[in-house]
Amino acid sequence: METTDKVRVVEKYVEAFANSDMAIIRQMFAGNATVEDPVGTPAHEGLEAVCAFYEGAMKMNATLALTGTPRCAGNAIAFPFQVKMQNMVIDVIDVFEFNDEGKVASMKAYWGPENIQS
Amino acid sequence: METTDKVRVVEKYVEAFANSDMAIIRQMFAGNATVEDPVGTPAHEGLEAVCAFYEGAMKMNATLALTGTPRCAGNAIAFPFQVKMQNMVIDVIDVFEFNDEGKVASMKAYWGPENIQS
Repeated sequence: METTDKVRVVEKYVEAFANSDMAIIRQMFAGNATVEDPVGTPAHEGLEAVCAFYEGAMKMNATLALTGTPRCAGNAIAFPFQVKMQNMVIDVIDVFEFNDEGKVASMKAYWGPENIQS
Repeated sequence: METTDKVRVVEKYVEAFANSDMAIIRQMFAGNATVEDPVGTPAHEGLEAVCAFYEGAMKMNATLALTGTPRCAGNAIAFPFQVKMQNMVIDVIDVFEFNDEGKVASMKAYWGPENIQS
């Protein structure tokens, strides 16, 4: 998978939040995808559970803005960003791992209470 | 493991590079630690291999500067930084995972050719 294709997925992910576009989310994740957000909490497993998680985030009008350049390595991409949601701004780093079909098989979000500005 | 302890390890890691202090590296990693830098390349496995890897980096006078706030989640910390080495500046995101003794058991560095400024 080319670096530009991975970066494009991250750009579409940001766009999905901006437009509350669940079709993007459904298209970018693998059927057996796992989402752990934040890391250390139980993962959402499988596309339906993943989509339900993102529907919830979009109902809270979360929006994302990159705060640095994405880093591509191996089958993964890591990127720093801010989530704006209700009255909060949260600094997060996400790591996506892609499968051979170019779908996101694993998403891990790194953030904690110390990364929340309110 | 407390968030402040994890952040302290990252601060010491930056200090280790600033001072070419291998004692810090040797103290912070677990005996069975793995280091994958960048992700997608063969891991350095075990403390001696890990230390040999860092000795090489320090011989190139690599220095690190955080470019954002560290994100703590679960047993992990993720942080964005720049490496300055020879005539290059590289944007990197590292993820450390800690074991129950507070040692770094796994380090993964996310960066690729697109993240190198020369």
